[in-house]
Amino acid sequence: MNLRSGRLKGKMSDEAASFNSSLEFDKRIFEADIELNTAHTTMLARQGIIPEETAQNILKALKDLKEEGIEALDLDISVEDIHMAVENYVTSKIGADAGYMHTAKSRNDQVATDLRLVLKEEIKLIGNSILRFIEEILDMADEHKETIFVGYTHLQHAQPTTFAHHLLAYANALRRDYERLMDAYKRVDMNPLGSAALTTTSFPIDREMTTKLLGFSRVMENSIDGVSSRDFIAETVFSLSMMGSTISKICEELINWSTYEFGVIEIGYEYSSTSSIMPQKKNPDIAELARAKSAVLTGELMTIMTILKALPYSYNKDLQEVTPHLWNSVDTAKAILSIMNGMLSSITVNKERAAELAKSNFATATELADILVREKNMPFRTAHKIVGRMVTKALESKVSLDDIDSKFLDKVAHEIMGKSLDLNDESIRKALDPYENVKARTVIGGSSPEAVEKVIVSLRIFLNEEI
Amino acid sequence: MNLRSGRLKGKMSDEAASFNSSLEFDKRIFEADIELNTAHTTMLARQGIIPEETAQNILKALKDLKEEGIEALDLDISVEDIHMAVENYVTSKIGADAGYMHTAKSRNDQVATDLRLVLKEEIKLIGNSILRFIEEILDMADEHKETIFVGYTHLQHAQPTTFAHHLLAYANALRRDYERLMDAYKRVDMNPLGSAALTTTSFPIDREMTTKLLGFSRVMENSIDGVSSRDFIAETVFSLSMMGSTISKICEELINWSTYEFGVIEIGYEYSSTSSIMPQKKNPDIAELARAKSAVLTGELMTIMTILKALPYSYNKDLQEVTPHLWNSVDTAKAILSIMNGMLSSITVNKERAAELAKSNFATATELADILVREKNMPFRTAHKIVGRMVTKALESKVSLDDIDSKFLDKVAHEIMGKSLDLNDESIRKALDPYENVKARTVIGGSSPEAVEKVIVSLRIFLNEEI
Amino acid sequence: MNLRSGRLKGKMSDEAASFNSSLEFDKRIFEADIELNTAHTTMLARQGIIPEETAQNILKALKDLKEEGIEALDLDISVEDIHMAVENYVTSKIGADAGYMHTAKSRNDQVATDLRLVLKEEIKLIGNSILRFIEEILDMADEHKETIFVGYTHLQHAQPTTFAHHLLAYANALRRDYERLMDAYKRVDMNPLGSAALTTTSFPIDREMTTKLLGFSRVMENSIDGVSSRDFIAETVFSLSMMGSTISKICEELINWSTYEFGVIEIGYEYSSTSSIMPQKKNPDIAELARAKSAVLTGELMTIMTILKALPYSYNKDLQEVTPHLWNSVDTAKAILSIMNGMLSSITVNKERAAELAKSNFATATELADILVREKNMPFRTAHKIVGRMVTKALESKVSLDDIDSKFLDKVAHEIMGKSLDLNDESIRKALDPYENVKARTVIGGSSPEAVEKVIVSLRIFLNEEI
Amino acid sequence: MNLRSGRLKGKMSDEAASFNSSLEFDKRIFEADIELNTAHTTMLARQGIIPEETAQNILKALKDLKEEGIEALDLDISVEDIHMAVENYVTSKIGADAGYMHTAKSRNDQVATDLRLVLKEEIKLIGNSILRFIEEILDMADEHKETIFVGYTHLQHAQPTTFAHHLLAYANALRRDYERLMDAYKRVDMNPLGSAALTTTSFPIDREMTTKLLGFSRVMENSIDGVSSRDFIAETVFSLSMMGSTISKICEELINWSTYEFGVIEIGYEYSSTSSIMPQKKNPDIAELARAKSAVLTGELMTIMTILKALPYSYNKDLQEVTPHLWNSVDTAKAILSIMNGMLSSITVNKERAAELAKSNFATATELADILVREKNMPFRTAHKIVGRMVTKALESKVSLDDIDSKFLDKVAHEIMGKSLDLNDESIRKALDPYENVKARTVIGGSSPEAVEKVIVSLRIFLNEEI
Repeated sequence: MNLRSGRLKGKMSDEAASFNSSLEFDKRIFEADIELNTAHTTMLARQGIIPEETAQNILKALKDLKEEGIEALDLDISVEDIHMAVENYVTSKIGADAGYMHTAKSRNDQVATDLRLVLKEEIKLIGNSILRFIEEILDMADEHKETIFVGYTHLQHAQPTTFAHHLLAYANALRRDYERLMDAYKRVDMNPLGSAALTTTSFPIDREMTTKLLGFSRVMENSIDGVSSRDFIAETVFSLSMMGSTISKICEELINWSTYEFGVIEIGYEYSSTSSIMPQKKNPDIAELARAKSAVLTGELMTIMTILKALPYSYNKDLQEVTPHLWNSVDTAKAILSIMNGMLSSITVNKERAAELAKSNFATATELADILVREKNMPFRTAHKIVGRMVTKALESKVSLDDIDSKFLDKVAHEIMGKSLDLNDESIRKALDPYENVKARTVIGGSSPEAVEKVIVSLRIFLNEEI
Repeated sequence: MNLRSGRLKGKMSDEAASFNSSLEFDKRIFEADIELNTAHTTMLARQGIIPEETAQNILKALKDLKEEGIEALDLDISVEDIHMAVENYVTSKIGADAGYMHTAKSRNDQVATDLRLVLKEEIKLIGNSILRFIEEILDMADEHKETIFVGYTHLQHAQPTTFAHHLLAYANALRRDYERLMDAYKRVDMNPLGSAALTTTSFPIDREMTTKLLGFSRVMENSIDGVSSRDFIAETVFSLSMMGSTISKICEELINWSTYEFGVIEIGYEYSSTSSIMPQKKNPDIAELARAKSAVLTGELMTIMTILKALPYSYNKDLQEVTPHLWNSVDTAKAILSIMNGMLSSITVNKERAAELAKSNFATATELADILVREKNMPFRTAHKIVGRMVTKALESKVSLDDIDSKFLDKVAHEIMGKSLDLNDESIRKALDPYENVKARTVIGGSSPEAVEKVIVSLRIFLNEEI
Repeated sequence: MNLRSGRLKGKMSDEAASFNSSLEFDKRIFEADIELNTAHTTMLARQGIIPEETAQNILKALKDLKEEGIEALDLDISVEDIHMAVENYVTSKIGADAGYMHTAKSRNDQVATDLRLVLKEEIKLIGNSILRFIEEILDMADEHKETIFVGYTHLQHAQPTTFAHHLLAYANALRRDYERLMDAYKRVDMNPLGSAALTTTSFPIDREMTTKLLGFSRVMENSIDGVSSRDFIAETVFSLSMMGSTISKICEELINWSTYEFGVIEIGYEYSSTSSIMPQKKNPDIAELARAKSAVLTGELMTIMTILKALPYSYNKDLQEVTPHLWNSVDTAKAILSIMNGMLSSITVNKERAAELAKSNFATATELADILVREKNMPFRTAHKIVGRMVTKALESKVSLDDIDSKFLDKVAHEIMGKSLDLNDESIRKALDPYENVKARTVIGGSSPEAVEKVIVSLRIFLNEEI
Repeated sequence: MNLRSGRLKGKMSDEAASFNSSLEFDKRIFEADIELNTAHTTMLARQGIIPEETAQNILKALKDLKEEGIEALDLDISVEDIHMAVENYVTSKIGADAGYMHTAKSRNDQVATDLRLVLKEEIKLIGNSILRFIEEILDMADEHKETIFVGYTHLQHAQPTTFAHHLLAYANALRRDYERLMDAYKRVDMNPLGSAALTTTSFPIDREMTTKLLGFSRVMENSIDGVSSRDFIAETVFSLSMMGSTISKICEELINWSTYEFGVIEIGYEYSSTSSIMPQKKNPDIAELARAKSAVLTGELMTIMTILKALPYSYNKDLQEVTPHLWNSVDTAKAILSIMNGMLSSITVNKERAAELAKSNFATATELADILVREKNMPFRTAHKIVGRMVTKALESKVSLDDIDSKFLDKVAHEIMGKSLDLNDESIRKALDPYENVKARTVIGGSSPEAVEKVIVSLRIFLNEEI
């Protein structure tokens, strides 16, 4: 059926038809469109808006189409979109009566509804993928509660921690990414069907019925809003983009840590490549690509926000251009989540190197200052000053951590306070030992094995509730 | 107190110190920082970590500072940030004992906590501002339930509606903007204090206590995540940006509608300006600026997402640059919300012009097609074709809507179906009358006064629950 | 040939191989890669680096491949990229000697060179397309030098102009878009080949020779820069994005002007569509889509800038992800340019409506103020005030432009200056006549037919020089 | 003078006036506005458009204002903008005759011209700053032509190079950043003055004269384009953003290199800070902030592109919002350029550590493969395979680079080719020695001291031409 024959004089130019066509990415909503037409036709018949027999014929044709699959459609670009293609299919089966199917709806509410139906499923899939990734991280954390690691600030050694403790930073960020996506889901899960072109219809349709049949939680309460709003897409893409941000940080760390210089992890060869010219190379290609792809999510978000800006109500064709960027974001998010899960599992931690780094470069200095506060009862700022000066002195005179004792410390104390500290050497040794440092951090969210275990348990409870 | 004297040899260059300083935008967290220090010091004393008397002295100094206000601080850029300035103030009052205040915390957890404290208040203010804007819109809608308006798709006349119905599209979009911001709030309302530099501390602090004292709902369960995460900022700015998108659409419509050509509204002179050269001008400057400022929100979001991309854990100085873009977004959002509320209230609707447009250009054609389906029992597609052809014919022969009768319609029907329709003229008149069109759309979300009234009631209930 | 067998233990996982593969968008550089290998092999032989006979065999195989086309390649994803696929093809023809082809080059310099070779051609095509679009605009302008049109500021009537004058704003903006793209071209047209992996090679290659053979203007003077830099891509995409911005403005105007309310143009039916539910609609779909697609260009730019940010030297796999966004930008730019050219040519101008609007709403008021300055020798500001007040009075008392005479004006003058102006009615009529207004603007860049003609001539000279 | 009194009924609301005011960032164009008014008034008098004596009075007042400075103006927000403030000043000096100054111009062309005048100066300053930065880099390169460094791809050791060679990658990228900015300058350097509100004027102004007086190279040939176009701003901000991208890469490298793990450089203490809690820290704050600020430039670009998208002609108030983002970009660019120059000069290179790294991890393996091609006449791919396998074997059996000899290599060769290579040990030693590697890369753009020297000379010639 050619919609144009009534109002327009001739065909679009081929170039314009191709430019205008959404068929390429409409494929994605093929099944949703059948589902929608099925629900809508059912409702039309129950409300007595179309003849029962006609409805049955339409429903039969839709069922056949679902079984035959999208290949059964004529997807010539002149058909314009999937909605027309589906209708044409039904027409080819049952004749002009197929036209009843389009009573009291429009492509405007139809496409908005289809997009929401498909996106709901995609969000659930991505949500599950995040949960599985968190689970994988928790399993790794379980194994590494005592694996000493350096914690960095400014990419400089800050304080010793464990690999498990670090992994839980990932897990907590991903949990928020998940929760954010689920919050977006609530606003995807609203039914615009029945908005028709923009003002609903004078047919006595039952919007609550189609809402129930299609599995939506809420009906959209304004029809102009129903056909015009794409904030549900922008918000979903933002949520994916934020998750991409989390993943980009993990990638950055894997890349840094697997350098020759850091050398604390090795990424599995299944996720590495070599060079066409440098035979010795083992490159973290996958981590680099996943890092780059997080930028794609941000770029798609930008595209969508820019399309939406200052667009007057209600439906404008600009909205069609939003869709491919949604699907590209969804596919990119799924791809990086899946590959990250595998890649993170593939790493091996070089515990010796990590422990060695944790001892180097005075990452335990804070604890020494804390002990001065506790044992010598001095303000933290004074302790900070003494230990800072001590580090400088040790670096200059190439004194290593293991050689620092009460005498060395007192020399600095004299300079600053004019008197000795008389801290016992055992206290100093404990303060400067990375593992003792870690064990001492037992407060909520801390790095000690028990504190870490509590968070693992807490996150497993969360996972059990969500899965 | 100069932190550097321990570890670093000399001062930053003046240029570097100025580049490095966050004092300019730290002013915003001044009160939060006092609140935080108060809660932290209270907890330290209760836990027996610092002497009770010292704690009292510190708390007294903090109270004094709160009363004296930010002017009491030395905000020289060499002081680096507000945290040092506050500590310096306390030191000036009670001497080196002020240093105890910084036991078991770091500027890393401190700034993250301060930002969250202030942002919680700002979100509440913005949330209230959105609710007030919705309320204003509902009041306008109440007055315009029978004001006929054209509904557009593709900026072409689509179907008649009412101004109230259109306004409810704004209200529903703003409601989602509000709900989205409140979802973001949940992730702002988490307490990182006690994360210290990045691994918590070996002091036996009570993080639940400070969480309660500061009014947070949850404690952050991983300290590395606590000091590193700024997703709460990105998400807030996205939510504001999405709300900016809604506002940009409203602005676009006000600008279009107040052109000479549309002429359906007039914006109050308090929100208009004239030209320095063209004496006849009345320009919608405020609407244009608010439209432009929605782009600022998107740009700030991009800045923030780009800063965060691929940043390794934990704290990096890059995070400092996130803050001014948060505050700029908050201020921009507040400004456009406030001005929009006033500007929208200032408009007057030219009802005659709107009604005239609603009758022009066959915006009621869908209803005529619907009636063919209902009364003549034909598939919608056939009805669509007949009415489409009728419109073309009417435009070509300059026949106006009022002159279309059964005879005219039958001429077209003959061409297409080879037979007459014999629709009675009264049915045709009703189908083509804009107000009859509107009245007939009684389904949920529709344009009829009753349907509109129901949504107003539903939104007022929502407002009552939230305010 | 499998590069991995030397250094890595096993294969990439299938998922990783697929994630890692660039084959999909490598197709675009197939011919360039043959060209590059041809030039490089030729140079290697001339420099005596590889045996002459081997070189001839390689060159023969490359020639065959070019004739057979890309279908001759094995593009299994395990092959990783087009460079390996080409080498594998040559190996299948001449055996292990094919390996000589890769002497003194790397995929790093190879892909950078290929991208530049292809992009140079694409830029030339797009450049020509812009020039053709300008030419089309000039042809339209030639026809419309006397077609009165309203000039808008703030979308409010400002001053009368002609359609030709307005069109020349487009032409001048597009000319800058063209010049900007050509400036970018200079930085694309630089040869990185010979940079090898990142430090050139110890083989005595002749980089000037390959530069000449491949038609580059300059050789890149640092090999690390040669393989790492993608600013040539970012700049090209920015230039396309800026051009997209110009096009988005044109689209916005076509959409506004073809509303029922403006009604000054009609877009050809080949570029319009109707509605599935509203039979009367004629929608500017193509203009809306082209407007939306300009956002895609900005989004792609954002993606690319974000990928590049803070990427350390030299080659990182992240750079691979830049490429698809370049090609998508190139294709989008080509599509919107081509469709815009056709669509703009398809419009018809409703001269009567345009002229009517130009007379309405006092768009000629500035000229009246100017005449007061000239004939009555008063400061512009005083004249501005008198005319501004006169417009308000006329609007309030519904006096139309044609009815304004010396008496009406004097009444206002009295109020403001306490005396009459005694301007003669003929002067007033001329001042208020749109066409007289237009004719009077003869200065450079003005709206008078002669001024417009001069600019058309100037732009035609520019076109002749560039084409 | 209050422009509104003619046309509008009352004042803007205070909130609207404040929202609408551009005074805050108008300060930046204060001097340009005097310059413009001076040139325009001079031209008006020479053309006989305004009385000579009046012109002299205006010029005298403008001269006084320039001397008194911006403090002499009344910058109350009700004044709206700097143009009105300047005119009000002149009025306060010479009375209503000041109004003649505004003959034949509008704030629309005035602000466009002012922005271009100021931006031209800013671009020149930034351009010079880039040139000085390149000069600084060349001076460093001069000192480090023999400082062995590791070249990385994928952040993995790739091949040995020198620090000078690496620095020249920066210099070449910055040179393109400079050239790009200068290309943008050409499009800033165009004069819109005389466009008036949008259609020029009927006064016989001489646009070539003001173009010359103001020092512009070209006059803008279409007045609608003249007042509407802001592509000159977008392009400048893009150029700054691209330069920011270069700087962000340099920052990333400085941060990586100054980690404990890399340890190849140390940043001067003037550009470092310590921690409030970790006394041992020396953090690269300035490099981190500069890296983050490059994101600000990209965000500002996005803001500007988004504001401009789909804005109809000609002037719209949205354009006012573009300006603060331009100035923020300019200031950010200047700040990061200046600080980078100082910071880069402050670094010290740890040559021993760098040399040690260059020997580790088989960064010289490519050269060994190359030698097999040259001396043993085998295809590169075969050589690549042998050396790749050799590296794996050496890593597994913990054989260091220095211990690899002909025998070790032959064992691998046997596995792969079934025969020995019989390469002499001296060849192997030379191939594996980093400095020998570097010396051998004498081709254009290579890492050998001579090749590096040639590029330094070439860049110094460029600098001499530009400064």
